[in-house]
Amino acid sequence: MIRYKITLEYHGRAFVGWQRQVNGLSVQQVVEEAIEKFSGETVVTHVAGRTDAGVHATGQVCHFDLVKETDVDTVRDALNFHIKPHPVSVIVAESVGKDFHARLSATQKVYVYKITNRRAPLAVGQGLSWWVSQELDTDAMSAAAQILVGRHDFSTFRAAGCQANSPIRTLDHLTVERKENLVLICACARSFLYHQVRNLAGTLKLVGETKWNPNDVEKALIAKNRAEGGPTAPPEGLYLTKVVY
Amino acid sequence: MIRYKITLEYHGRAFVGWQRQVNGLSVQQVVEEAIEKFSGETVVTHVAGRTDAGVHATGQVCHFDLVKETDVDTVRDALNFHIKPHPVSVIVAESVGKDFHARLSATQKVYVYKITNRRAPLAVGQGLSWWVSQELDTDAMSAAAQILVGRHDFSTFRAAGCQANSPIRTLDHLTVERKENLVLICACARSFLYHQVRNLAGTLKLVGETKWNPNDVEKALIAKNRAEGGPTAPPEGLYLTKVVY
Repeated sequence: MIRYKITLEYHGRAFVGWQRQVNGLSVQQVVEEAIEKFSGETVVTHVAGRTDAGVHATGQVCHFDLVKETDVDTVRDALNFHIKPHPVSVIVAESVGKDFHARLSATQKVYVYKITNRRAPLAVGQGLSWWVSQELDTDAMSAAAQILVGRHDFSTFRAAGCQANSPIRTLDHLTVERKENLVLICACARSFLYHQVRNLAGTLKLVGETKWNPNDVEKALIAKNRAEGGPTAPPEGLYLTKVVY
Repeated sequence: MIRYKITLEYHGRAFVGWQRQVNGLSVQQVVEEAIEKFSGETVVTHVAGRTDAGVHATGQVCHFDLVKETDVDTVRDALNFHIKPHPVSVIVAESVGKDFHARLSATQKVYVYKITNRRAPLAVGQGLSWWVSQELDTDAMSAAAQILVGRHDFSTFRAAGCQANSPIRTLDHLTVERKENLVLICACARSFLYHQVRNLAGTLKLVGETKWNPNDVEKALIAKNRAEGGPTAPPEGLYLTKVVY
């Protein structure tokens, strides 16, 4: 058996999320069906981060095992051939050792939340960022983000359906950067709670609008209560951009 | 009568092009209907550059006259309200003098042609650039582009249906720049022939693939014959980004 690691890009709008579900098409189904068409082998893929419905990826990682050994460039091209016409693309395919696991071996995941901050609605970029019309104070957002960095009980930013055993996570980085009309929130951690990045983004947006100040964010964090946090930002702004091993 | 100048962004895929046509929805129709809904006045808009079906804009400009005077921010917001849900957005509205004409007053139009140059197909960015899988030699493309700059008979790069009186145009700038996987071709001129930028992009791509060298581009230009030029690049890579007055 050969273990393959593939790095994926996908457009979230087309899917019910990464994971197979009965109510619609998942990225997992598209990828596993392409693997079977290419190799004739039925596999289960293991993914680094199970993204929600509507969430994009530019650097998702999954692994799977095949009996037959194939050149990695052929694996990439054959998968891309069979994935058509779905908006999923295999950027890189690599062969890895038996001890590699897409989720368990990951030391850090990087998510970027994109906000288009301008008065005019989105046209060319519809579905690729969150449109916020009120001008955001990104300095205040940056200050609030620093309060959230580190090891905390993130219950305030954890969705009801979260299956994690513990609400404690270590947020390695949380930065807010403006590039003209684009506000980028970058979050890095070994693992995240369900909806954590979208809940952080929705809360930081309140700070950017000056409805909250950084102290309100600290109070919300300490409350350990989802009802004290800001709203959940929409999925179309979120990108899983990188998984570090 | 007050003359308004509006700067527009739109996603080309949704439209048969700028100009009204019987066979589908045009950007012009969407904008003129929104103006009528907002003002109660029936207007004809005058546009800087009539983009083709599938071509995007981030800085298209048009003008129109209204009897009733309205604050320009209200014009922008009201038009955006009535344009919904079409992927067209009014970025800026301004009031201008009677001597302003969106097309005739323009001193330069800037088009950017975007190529995503990587082995893997597009997923998140489907429909927003031309996917070219073979690695492009952008130095050779840049050298070839320099041959095309200046005042020339561009018959080789002019589509059959072109209604311009003369095939002579002055290309002020034509540059090729790589930003990681993105290759950007930027073309600036006071005016362009029909399909000129897409025909230039399709020809420069042949150079990038080393199927042509810069001398072949010079020979093609001198031939003044469309049959001697490269293929027409697809519309989804083209953006009208700016009109200078």
